[in-house]
Amino acid sequence: MDVTRDNFGAALSEFRKAVVACDFAAIDMEMTGLYESKEWQPHRQDSKDDRYAKIKRSVESYGVVQVGICLFTWIASSEGQGHEQQCRQTDKSEEEEESSSGYYEARPFNFNVFPCTSVGRKPIETHFGCKNTAFEFLSKNSFDFNKWVYSGIPYLCTEEAMLIKAERIGLYTNRQTMTVADDRVSRAFVKGFECALKEFISSGERIMRYDTANTYQRKIIHDLVSKHDALGTKGQNGCIEVFKSTKKAMAKHTAQRLKLLEASIEESRGFCTIIDLLSEARKPVVGHNMPLDVLHAYSKFYKSLPDTRVDFEQAVSKFLPVLIDTKYIIESTPGIKARYKTSNLDEIAPMLEKEASSGSAQPMIRNHPRFLRHVSNTMHEAGFDAYMTGATFIRLLNLDGGLDLSTAAGTSCEHGSELVLYRYINKLYLALGDELYWQVGGGSDLKNTSTSTASPAVNAVQNSDDDDMAISENDELNSSSLLDTVALQS
Amino acid sequence: MDVTRDNFGAALSEFRKAVVACDFAAIDMEMTGLYESKEWQPHRQDSKDDRYAKIKRSVESYGVVQVGICLFTWIASSEGQGHEQQCRQTDKSEEEEESSSGYYEARPFNFNVFPCTSVGRKPIETHFGCKNTAFEFLSKNSFDFNKWVYSGIPYLCTEEAMLIKAERIGLYTNRQTMTVADDRVSRAFVKGFECALKEFISSGERIMRYDTANTYQRKIIHDLVSKHDALGTKGQNGCIEVFKSTKKAMAKHTAQRLKLLEASIEESRGFCTIIDLLSEARKPVVGHNMPLDVLHAYSKFYKSLPDTRVDFEQAVSKFLPVLIDTKYIIESTPGIKARYKTSNLDEIAPMLEKEASSGSAQPMIRNHPRFLRHVSNTMHEAGFDAYMTGATFIRLLNLDGGLDLSTAAGTSCEHGSELVLYRYINKLYLALGDELYWQVGGGSDLKNTSTSTASPAVNAVQNSDDDDMAISENDELNSSSLLDTVALQS
Repeated sequence: MDVTRDNFGAALSEFRKAVVACDFAAIDMEMTGLYESKEWQPHRQDSKDDRYAKIKRSVESYGVVQVGICLFTWIASSEGQGHEQQCRQTDKSEEEEESSSGYYEARPFNFNVFPCTSVGRKPIETHFGCKNTAFEFLSKNSFDFNKWVYSGIPYLCTEEAMLIKAERIGLYTNRQTMTVADDRVSRAFVKGFECALKEFISSGERIMRYDTANTYQRKIIHDLVSKHDALGTKGQNGCIEVFKSTKKAMAKHTAQRLKLLEASIEESRGFCTIIDLLSEARKPVVGHNMPLDVLHAYSKFYKSLPDTRVDFEQAVSKFLPVLIDTKYIIESTPGIKARYKTSNLDEIAPMLEKEASSGSAQPMIRNHPRFLRHVSNTMHEAGFDAYMTGATFIRLLNLDGGLDLSTAAGTSCEHGSELVLYRYINKLYLALGDELYWQVGGGSDLKNTSTSTASPAVNAVQNSDDDDMAISENDELNSSSLLDTVALQS
Repeated sequence: MDVTRDNFGAALSEFRKAVVACDFAAIDMEMTGLYESKEWQPHRQDSKDDRYAKIKRSVESYGVVQVGICLFTWIASSEGQGHEQQCRQTDKSEEEEESSSGYYEARPFNFNVFPCTSVGRKPIETHFGCKNTAFEFLSKNSFDFNKWVYSGIPYLCTEEAMLIKAERIGLYTNRQTMTVADDRVSRAFVKGFECALKEFISSGERIMRYDTANTYQRKIIHDLVSKHDALGTKGQNGCIEVFKSTKKAMAKHTAQRLKLLEASIEESRGFCTIIDLLSEARKPVVGHNMPLDVLHAYSKFYKSLPDTRVDFEQAVSKFLPVLIDTKYIIESTPGIKARYKTSNLDEIAPMLEKEASSGSAQPMIRNHPRFLRHVSNTMHEAGFDAYMTGATFIRLLNLDGGLDLSTAAGTSCEHGSELVLYRYINKLYLALGDELYWQVGGGSDLKNTSTSTASPAVNAVQNSDDDDMAISENDELNSSSLLDTVALQS
């Protein structure tokens, strides 16, 4: 489903229901650039702190143009009967592939996003960097820049929304900072206006029109008048209208403005609402080479990134409790690396797909009838890449014989469902000297607790409401079907 | 004429001829943003140095997406006869308006530009900032972002081209810096390859294929082999082919690569060739509120901006010798300000155009038959704004009674052609406290030399080939028709 501001309302309702029901989400993003200069480019010799600083710098320098979120839901055979009929028409090889247990239903959303430009009528300015080569890369993959700017879904994270709200309330209730008239012409203007205002207040007139030459003078008048409880202003062409009112009427007017402000902010939050829903759903989120994606999602749609790596590792669990990086799965599993000779998504995903369609025992993946696999028919469209990432994850866990964990992890272990997932939770791929991953969130703390029979994903969840590590029941993850699939082969 | 990379060759030929023949050029640009944050926004209380630093910062932070250059040529009545026949069909009110002396022929070029992404096959990375609100402004004026990225004319200024050339020559002739293998895996890789290379050299084999896992390893091999005069490398899928050759063959190969490099660089310079031609033509260049435009043109298409304002003021004359800012003309002439009550181009230009079409004595402006006035039918398309700026300049100099110089300049003076232009040469509009302009180039030094009967524009020209202030004959400006027009009314 390709989503712009035009169909965002409908997509939001669809997403709201589907994210609660799904087993996991896969994500991908397209950005306006990666690294500003050589100095900020990742290097194998980086320390983990250096690397965090570099990724943070990239995220704070560049914009996100598209976010793909693909929701995968396990449909057990009995549930999916009616639905299967519908799907069968569009996918020829389904019948052969179908395993007796069920299939994964995929809902890929391709969200086109553009930073919110106004709240109410006031502009909200956002600066973001671009790389010419990143734009060229997007153009080679048929990216529609006009759709991005003209129809992108706005977004405004809670943190920014709060700041804007506080500033506007200050403005409505006369608590804002005064414009400083610090040159000769402006000082003369202030003097002239104050004199006219005094005369107007003591006169019988209800309205005074005062000529202004520019925005700066208009701002001065708004500021000066806002100090009076029972006076209001209204901008006109080339002048400001100052009118007399009552305290009560002005208070009512302010209350109305606050109500309108709330509504405008809600509208401007746009895509952040989707990320709020994803975060609240506490589902595992799968990505491919995901550090940049995770930090972009955190910084653009949730809140400012913590200054230090350690603080981020703690904070990310409140945002998304379970992250799984398919690039790390591939790179850390010699059996897979040897078989496919690549960990690039655009190379390995089609190979795995081809194997799946040639009658292997892998579980079937079908698109929900209202969801196309992709819009532009190419990789590097975020919605399609999210779909391919999720599909790759499912297929990697189901390779003939399963993942060779004994080699990958250095220590031999039982190939049970808990352990399969446990090995990969919250380990983000980072080629750092001889280290392959970056452990974030609750993963490392859970190292010795995975003998529990509960879903390992549940163990990884941290309470999102307070700072301690207690596990909340509300945070429970629904990933049982995925684990069942893995267990089948072990 | 709307110009993209597809029709750039034809537009370049057209421009090359027309810029030599024209009387003056008008310019305008569309950018990806203006000021990054409040701290960098211009303020009336800025010192001139502060203001230069702020404009420089803006120019170095943001990109240019469109450059409008409109060339205006005075066609005296006798010259224009044949041409008039052609034009008459497209402009109804021409016959009434036509003055007995001739008309201005306008050639607006609307250049869509995008920073060059490669020289040869190697990527050239350029970082530029964007403001969401600037993109929204462009979209409100029908800007086509896809045309910009997919078909924008590349550009690469001489300074950058020289750096790239030096780097590549170093690479072809073994003078580049070696890739440093600074981790355990890479050091082992280097050792292994050096051993294999030694064996290969002493063997009877002509070709050796060596497996590589990533770009980094491939770069290491290229570097190591380039130290040998009679060995070459060729990238293959997943490996590098090392081949034996002769010193002579390798030298020939290098010479061919250098020739190809020259051609690639010339192609990548693209739009900078247009700016070179404009600079070489030594014509007056008119803009509206032009500091940002001039600094963008200098920095993006000519060379890096000097660090200090004083250095820029000197350097700009070598780039464009005569700059005229219509916003300064309006703001510094009380008669004009009082009559039109605005100095915004999108407000005053249509008023002046309406007056011109209602039978005033202003000189006629016609578009050359191959040139549309505009592509998108709106203001804020760079080509159209350049046209409107030039037309406004012509009309301002021809208002009933001409410019009220005695009031504007503070001292009474004869309303002769030299003085009219002299008053405005190289004064860029800047609202700085009580000062209206920024004197750049040769203007201030020429203050006491304007009694000469030669064209004042000639006096303003500084020699572009050396640092002293001598006037070169090659730099002569052809602006006589413009001056004639002015003189008619004095």
